[in-house]
Parts: sequence; C-alpha cells; structure tokens
Amino acid sequence: MVDTALGFSYSGGVILSTGYPLFTSRLSCVLRRGKEFLLSQNDYSRVLLIVPEIKELLRERNREALRHLSRDYEPVEVAEIMDQFSLREKVLLFSLWDVDYAADVFEKISAEDRSQVLSAVDEQRRARILDELDPDDRADFFEGLPADTVKRFLSIMQHEEARDARQLLRYDPSTAGGRMTTEFAATAPSVNAKQTLTNLQKTAKNLETVYYVYVLNHQRRLLGVVSLRELIVANPKQRIRDIMHPNPVSIPVDMDQEAAAQEIAKYDFLALPVVDHQQTMQGIITVDDVIDVITEEDSEDMYKFGAAGEPARDYLSSNLFTMARNRITWLLILVATGLVTGFILQRFSFALESVVALTFYVPLLMGSAGNAGTQAAMVIVRGLATGEVHLGDVKPVLKKECLIGAALGIPLGLLGLFRALAVDRNPFLGMTVGLSMVLTIITATTLGAVLPLICRRLGIDPAVVSAPLITTVLDIASLLIYFRIAVFFLQLG
Amino acid sequence: MVDTALGFSYSGGVILSTGYPLFTSRLSCVLRRGKEFLLSQNDYSRVLLIVPEIKELLRERNREALRHLSRDYEPVEVAEIMDQFSLREKVLLFSLWDVDYAADVFEKISAEDRSQVLSAVDEQRRARILDELDPDDRADFFEGLPADTVKRFLSIMQHEEARDARQLLRYDPSTAGGRMTTEFAATAPSVNAKQTLTNLQKTAKNLETVYYVYVLNHQRRLLGVVSLRELIVANPKQRIRDIMHPNPVSIPVDMDQEAAAQEIAKYDFLALPVVDHQQTMQGIITVDDVIDVITEEDSEDMYKFGAAGEPARDYLSSNLFTMARNRITWLLILVATGLVTGFILQRFSFALESVVALTFYVPLLMGSAGNAGTQAAMVIVRGLATGEVHLGDVKPVLKKECLIGAALGIPLGLLGLFRALAVDRNPFLGMTVGLSMVLTIITATTLGAVLPLICRRLGIDPAVVSAPLITTVLDIASLLIYFRIAVFFLQLG
Repeated sequence: MVDTALGFSYSGGVILSTGYPLFTSRLSCVLRRGKEFLLSQNDYSRVLLIVPEIKELLRERNREALRHLSRDYEPVEVAEIMDQFSLREKVLLFSLWDVDYAADVFEKISAEDRSQVLSAVDEQRRARILDELDPDDRADFFEGLPADTVKRFLSIMQHEEARDARQLLRYDPSTAGGRMTTEFAATAPSVNAKQTLTNLQKTAKNLETVYYVYVLNHQRRLLGVVSLRELIVANPKQRIRDIMHPNPVSIPVDMDQEAAAQEIAKYDFLALPVVDHQQTMQGIITVDDVIDVITEEDSEDMYKFGAAGEPARDYLSSNLFTMARNRITWLLILVATGLVTGFILQRFSFALESVVALTFYVPLLMGSAGNAGTQAAMVIVRGLATGEVHLGDVKPVLKKECLIGAALGIPLGLLGLFRALAVDRNPFLGMTVGLSMVLTIITATTLGAVLPLICRRLGIDPAVVSAPLITTVLDIASLLIYFRIAVFFLQLG
Repeated sequence: MVDTALGFSYSGGVILSTGYPLFTSRLSCVLRRGKEFLLSQNDYSRVLLIVPEIKELLRERNREALRHLSRDYEPVEVAEIMDQFSLREKVLLFSLWDVDYAADVFEKISAEDRSQVLSAVDEQRRARILDELDPDDRADFFEGLPADTVKRFLSIMQHEEARDARQLLRYDPSTAGGRMTTEFAATAPSVNAKQTLTNLQKTAKNLETVYYVYVLNHQRRLLGVVSLRELIVANPKQRIRDIMHPNPVSIPVDMDQEAAAQEIAKYDFLALPVVDHQQTMQGIITVDDVIDVITEEDSEDMYKFGAAGEPARDYLSSNLFTMARNRITWLLILVATGLVTGFILQRFSFALESVVALTFYVPLLMGSAGNAGTQAAMVIVRGLATGEVHLGDVKPVLKKECLIGAALGIPLGLLGLFRALAVDRNPFLGMTVGLSMVLTIITATTLGAVLPLICRRLGIDPAVVSAPLITTVLDIASLLIYFRIAVFFLQLG
C-alpha cells in the first residue's frame, strides 16, 4: 500500500550498509538502541544501563561523546534517569550539553531538580537555558517560584524573552493565555507561498510548531491560517490570501484551559491560535498541551469524585500533612453530616428496641443506596465532563434514572424480603425491608443523577458530588425512608 | 516578538480589502463567520443558524453553494447539526458534497446515522465514501457492523483500500494495531531531500499526516524518521540517510492502546510508527487518536471506580436495560457482601441490646471508614494510571497511608469521643467510639491504598477497587473492630 501510494522505489540492498555517522565512543554498543529498539515496559531499565558510562564520560569531561546522547536518546528519556546523578554531575551535564538539548531535558525534570540545577550552573549557562526554554514551559516553571527568584531570572534573560515571559505570567495559569506559547509562525496575506516557505525555513528552529502558519494583518489581527502541508503543495507564486483558510477557529485568551482543550480535541487540530478581544493574535496552544490538560483535568475530577481534595504534584514525595489536610476537610464535613444519622437512629430507638432485627438491615440498606447513588452520580459527572450530557437534559436524565432505579431496586428489594423471611421469619419485617430497598434505590439513582446537574446549574463543578458525599446524603435519606416504613408496617410507636 | 522572530513585513492596510473568493449565494451573511469568529459556548447555536438555508439549497440542488460549506465550516461542526435533517436530506447532502468533505463529515456523525446514510446513497457514492474514509476510522466503523454488511462494503471498495481494511480488522481494536492508520509518508534512505519533498507534494492529499516521513528499506523495515520541518530546512541535495533520526521510537502492533497513548504523550510526538516483530512498518498512530484513547480510558477508569460497569456509547440514547444490567452486577456482589454486616450485627445483638446507644455510632463509623478508604483508593488508582505510583512502591505507600490514617483518625476519634460524652454521658462508650474511629480510619487508608496495588500485581485493573467496593469491605472491617472494642470496654458478653 505504502509503496504504491507514494510511488517510491527502494534502491535495494545497499541501504543496510549505509554510512550512518560511525560511533566513536565506547558508548556505542550501549547507547545504540541496537536490535531491540521497540518500546517496551523496560524502557526505563534500558536507559538506566547508560548511567555508569555517562558518569565515566563526565569524569573525563568528554563533551563530544556526551553530545551523542542527544542523537540517540530523547530528552524525556534522559530526564527519567536524572535522579541517578549527584547535583554536581547534573550541573556538569547541563553545562556540557548543547544548550537546546539541555533546555529540552530541563523541561522534563522535576520542579525541585530544576531549581537546584539552575542555581548551581554558572550565570551565563543559566541565562542561556532560560532563554532557550519553550515560553509556555518556562511560564509554568516560574509560576511555582518565589517572586524575587523570578525577578532575578528575568533580569539575566534576553530582553525579548523576558518580555514574553512577563506577558505570559499575567494570565491565569488555568486559562488559554496561561497555557499558550508565544512562538508561532506568522505571515502576511500579500506574501506568496515560496517566500513564506523560505521565511519559515529560516525561523523553524525557534518555533514550537511550524505546521501551521498564521496570517496576520499589520495590526497582528488574525486573518487566516495555512498549513505547512498546503504550503508545500501550493503553487509557489500563489499569494497566501488565496491559499489560506479565512476566519480560522480561534480561542479567546481568557477561555478556561479545559474548554480550550476540548476545542482542539474536537477539531483534531495540531494547534489553535489564541486571540484577545480585538482578535489580535497572542499565541498558540499545541496538541501536546491539550493532552496534559486533559490528564490534569481528569485527575482533578477523579480526586474530587473520591473527595480526596487537590491532586498532589507527586504522590510519593509530597508532604504527609499537606495530604492529610487535603483529605480531612471533606471527612469532617461528612462526619458532621454523618452525625445526623446518629440522631435519626436515636429518634427511632423505640423501634430498634422493640424489633432489634431492624438494626441488622441498616448497613445493607444504606450500603446499597450509597452504591447505586455513586454509580448514577459517576455516570452523570463524567457525561457532563465529556459533553455527552447537557444542562438541558434534566428531564430525560431524571426519567431514565428513575426507571433504572426501579429496575435495580426491585430485585434487590426481593432479595431483602427473602432474607428477612428466611432468617428472621417475620413477614412484616420482610415487607419493610423490601419496600424500603426499592424506594431508597430509586431515591439513590435520581438524587445521584440530579445533584451534579444542580451543581452545574449553580456554576459549581459537578465533580464535587463525590462518592463519599452522595453516600452520606443517602445514608440519611435511606434511614428516614426505612424507619417511616417500619413504623407503619410493624405498627410501632 | 512574532514579527521580529520571523522578520516578516506586513504590507499594510491593503490586506483587509483583499479578494477573498466572493460569496455567490444568499448564504453569505450567515455562512461567513462574520465578526464573531471567536469560539464560544454558542458554537452549536451559531451553526444551527444555517440549517434553514441548507434545507432551501437542498431543495434547489444548489451544489455550488453547498460546497462553500466546506470552506467555512469544519466537518465536525456540520456533523453536529446532522440531526436537524431528515434521512432524505442527509442522503442528498452526502451525495452532493465533494467526496472528501463528505467522508470527513461521515467520520464525525453517529454510528446509527452512518449506517443509515450509507445504505441509502447510491452504490457508486457508497463505494467512494468508503474508499475515502481514514483507514483507522473506517476500521472502527466496520468493527460495529454485522459481518455480512462489512463483507458487502468490502466488495464494492477499491482493491487496495479493501485489503487495508481487512488487515486492520485483524487486530484487536484496543491495541496499537487496531488504532493505527495505514496511510503514512515513506521514503528510502538513498533518496535526497528534494526528491522526498516532491514525492510528498504529490501524495500529501491522501495522507493523514505529512509531518513525519518514515524511512524504510526495501523490505519495509523501519530505518529512521525525518520530520517535514527537518526536510524543509535541509540542504535539498542531502540524502535522507544523513538527515534522518536512526532507530526511531516505535510501537509494537500488539501493544495495548493505553500504553501506546502514554508513549506518544510522553515523547510529545505528533505520531509514532507501529511495527511488527520483524520491525516491518505497519502504520502510524497519530496524536488525535491519543486524545481519544486517553479520554476513553479515563472514562473507563472512572466508571469502574464508580462501580458503574462499562461506559455507554451515548448516555441519553442507550438502552435502559443495558444500563441497568451494567450496574446491577456490582450492586448484587456488594449486597452479597453487605449481608455479612447483617450477620455481624446479629452476632453482636447482645451488645446492642444492653447498650442501645452503640447503634447510634454504627453509621458514623462505617461512613467515615468508607470515605477515608475511598480517598486513599482514588489517589492510588489514579497514581497507578498516570504512572506516578509503581508496583514497587508498596512499602512507602503503606507507610505513608498508615501515617495519614493516624493523622485523620485521631481528630475524628476525638470528635466521636466528645459526642459520646456530651450526648450519651458514658465515658466507656466514648472511649469505645474514639478508639474504634482511630483504628478503622487507619485500616481504611491502608486497605484503600493496598487493594489497588494487589490488583495490579495480580494483573487485574486496579480501578476495580471502586468506591462502592472499598466502602463495603470497610463496612465489615469497621463493624468487627467496633464490636471487639465495645465488648472489651463495656465489659459485655
């Protein structure tokens, strides 16, 4: 297929004996991916193998051989083994590598490592690494530093890069502006395809993506977009204005990062332009940022759903008490709510005293209600996040969950009924348990589904309707239903 | 910054009066995005505005005006308004559009619509749309159809496209092979940069991405990769073998889609090559597939965590009983487990009868344990999914969660103690409640954290340790702890 579609001819057996730049260092056998250049779970251990060799090269200050790393290992792979080196070795590495490779690795190491390395390298290196970082990664890094450190860093950077950095720091980090990078390819509408391509060739090295060229007027308003693909197939003399897509999809600078990510994902674009309210181009958001945003937002939603607070930056290294504090807020709220169950039980203690067997079904009933409610809440919370369920769908959702509640509650109710008949031999107790089960499960599915919708309407993130929250609310609801029915059927009180 | 970096000069005010192809149809004012070409929540309603116009154009069979759609509206936007048209209108649209635009829209409409439209258009159109679909999207579509329909479709397709489709259908849809597309750009190592670019220009239209060109030997083994960016900045006469990155990162065809997605996300690549065990190139996975995979897998994890079964393809339109069946399996398992709590309560009914107040604290204790366990499980399940926590981390995780358990349990225990002293005025009950709370919370956090790790070790998806499951397990554990302590302190039994 490939061959035919492309019409390429392969020039035969010669190929395997080609002159790949021969490896001059002892690293050769280890550094080369050799035969098993397939990715696998052992990626990390494979990269680990080069650690001793690197350490030796560092002792010898063999800059040439170290550079070969950049040919054979991706920056992210080298970043993964950074914790194998002492601070002194790290500093040496970051001083010996080519500065663009150093910057690429720098972007992938932990925030802690970054601060350490940057304070330890000499000032000239520090400035060059800072200048070389992708503007969006640099803004993220600065975001986590004390203000005076950022100021010091900005003072040693090139004027233009520093201005860019300051501009990005002005935006809320969770908006499109906070996520975007300011380096993109631009052209004017009157330029022709060939000129644009030539300009692009000159600047390609500094850009995060060259695959879209944005067409701006002299006030930097966004007029259109042309892809590199279109540029290379176009007639070289054609003017950009005749090739470009006018009025391209763009993202306002203050749009929430989650919404921005959904837009890029929806359109399957590699990048989207970010504009201010005058439609002036400010930057671009690229698809790799989108993946990060989606992963972050999903983590956040899941943590919320587990009532576990904010996701920690890194589980194993984060502070114990920060994590405990993160979780205890919700636990206390839930305990406070949970105390209500104690009062309900106390209020109905006369019933429990006359029919002790009533107690045996309390955990079963509460548990089932909590579980059914958690399921329904989960489905709706996720549906709202992926855009499958909308705020306007309250009525069909309510109807659906009510019916599902019945479909789930009736078999579970029968189960409870049979257990009460078999074990306690009390038909009235059986009816109480069975009927309570059906009613609590219906309450559970409808409440579980409606609460996230209510939150969305109130402008609260629907994911706060967590499993623990819905469980606690349903504990109370199911106890009230249970005792009302018990008092009626067992003629108590 | 942009201007300077690129050194472009803008040719001034002329630009706004350029000759964008003038709109010939009455659609002009509505179809053009006009001033408000910013994306917003109103996207959908904006696109909705063109529905009546399209309907009229359809009545007039105005093919020319309909084509303008493809210039001003993205296929995904048009797909979103498809439900506004009758089947007859849909069929007309898919027959009148340029076939590549029709195929792009087709990829974005619902599975139901796709089958309907495809059976209703005439055979020639049907064949052309099928041929034009992206191979990976086509494979996904075929996956959901009855075998004889697929066979019928394959029989009308072009020989090569049909062969491709058959090949993709052989792979498990949740592997790299099932996700990849077979259309990619390839070249031989001995060709020079200029020739490669020329070949690329000829074939660009049929490829999903032109941004990476893969270098294959005559047996189609993967030797290297060169990006379009490198290709355009290279010396035109340089041979590919001297520009390419040798031994590129690649994905085995049978790798799980989640792992494959994580690889692409890790390396920030736009696509990764998929190879078989002989390192023969089979296809590519592109970054837009990665976004889909991550969203799908996160949905799956969340549904599991909510014990809600498999995510439905579409919440609102999916069958009630399928959804109920999806959820009831877990509910029944949990009820069966929940019945154990009944037996425990029965076993200790002597204690409940002598100190009725013991009952009041049961829901509080079980609830808090369930909540603390859910939090811990959530953190570890997500940590395992994002790769932040590894199987080897059992010991530090255990230690950490044990300490967090104590940090959470002690204040909650004190709260329980004070309530018992204040309301029930029974210091022994207070000690029972307080101590039970501390111990159950520690049990909860450690169990919540360890269970997902055990699942991972056993090769089970850790996400099955759902909020309902952990809650149910902890109901039992906390009751046992509570009654043991009660019997001791209150000297019962």
